[in-house]
Amino acid sequence: MHESMMARALELAETALKVGEVPVGAVIYKKSGEIVGEGYNFVISSNDPTAHAEIVALRKAAQHQKSARLDGLMMAVTLEPCAMCAQAISHAKIAELRFGAYDVKSGGVQNGARIYDHKTCHHKPDVYGGLMEESCSKILQSFFREKR
Amino acid sequence: MHESMMARALELAETALKVGEVPVGAVIYKKSGEIVGEGYNFVISSNDPTAHAEIVALRKAAQHQKSARLDGLMMAVTLEPCAMCAQAISHAKIAELRFGAYDVKSGGVQNGARIYDHKTCHHKPDVYGGLMEESCSKILQSFFREKR
Repeated sequence: MHESMMARALELAETALKVGEVPVGAVIYKKSGEIVGEGYNFVISSNDPTAHAEIVALRKAAQHQKSARLDGLMMAVTLEPCAMCAQAISHAKIAELRFGAYDVKSGGVQNGARIYDHKTCHHKPDVYGGLMEESCSKILQSFFREKR
Repeated sequence: MHESMMARALELAETALKVGEVPVGAVIYKKSGEIVGEGYNFVISSNDPTAHAEIVALRKAAQHQKSARLDGLMMAVTLEPCAMCAQAISHAKIAELRFGAYDVKSGGVQNGARIYDHKTCHHKPDVYGGLMEESCSKILQSFFREKR
């Protein structure tokens, strides 16, 4: 199931690519496989510095669930979350986080601020990195190659 | 000027208190003193795990400026930002950050993940903690005392 969710997240990343945004997509889903929130990077188009794929998906899922707490839900995102998104995922009490590509430059889970490694992190999801890593990396590489 | 901005942030924190949210307020302003975005904690009321005072203010300021980048702008917030907000402030390129109370339990600037202390943090605002600290702490203490 998690692979099909990541495949959907990749579709969302492709949508971001089409509108000129950094191609990252995120899906929030139940154990049953029901999707409750989706998002793709939308920072430039929406003039919103917080509109990363994960934040968009979290806000939509919370509206859907009518709660700021998303206990027991899972997220699949094509890129390792940055520190902003990693902490937002913690605030929302997401149970499991799967990401595709690792982000050595701007990641905040297994790189940089390593949000879940601090004693003061009150909720830490189970984290699985590298799911469909090659496809998730490829779309980012093609974006940054074109930008240069 | 910064004290009057923090006084306004405190008024916003009082509004949060009235609606049963953690009393934190934030103001984004230009060097001229013009306020371009404000916010208070609105997580529970809006079913949005990301609706901290700083995020609300950043999104409003970015709409006002018609840009996801808020270069040269300043933020006054009554509480030390968490890691999510600290990273969002970095993404938005806020030039100066002033906060009131220190947050040993959940702060992400001078506590916890210390977002601006990592090599991979691409933009670090100038940070001044402890502005009007006593007033900013008091309102939080009264909130948590009532909760118990």
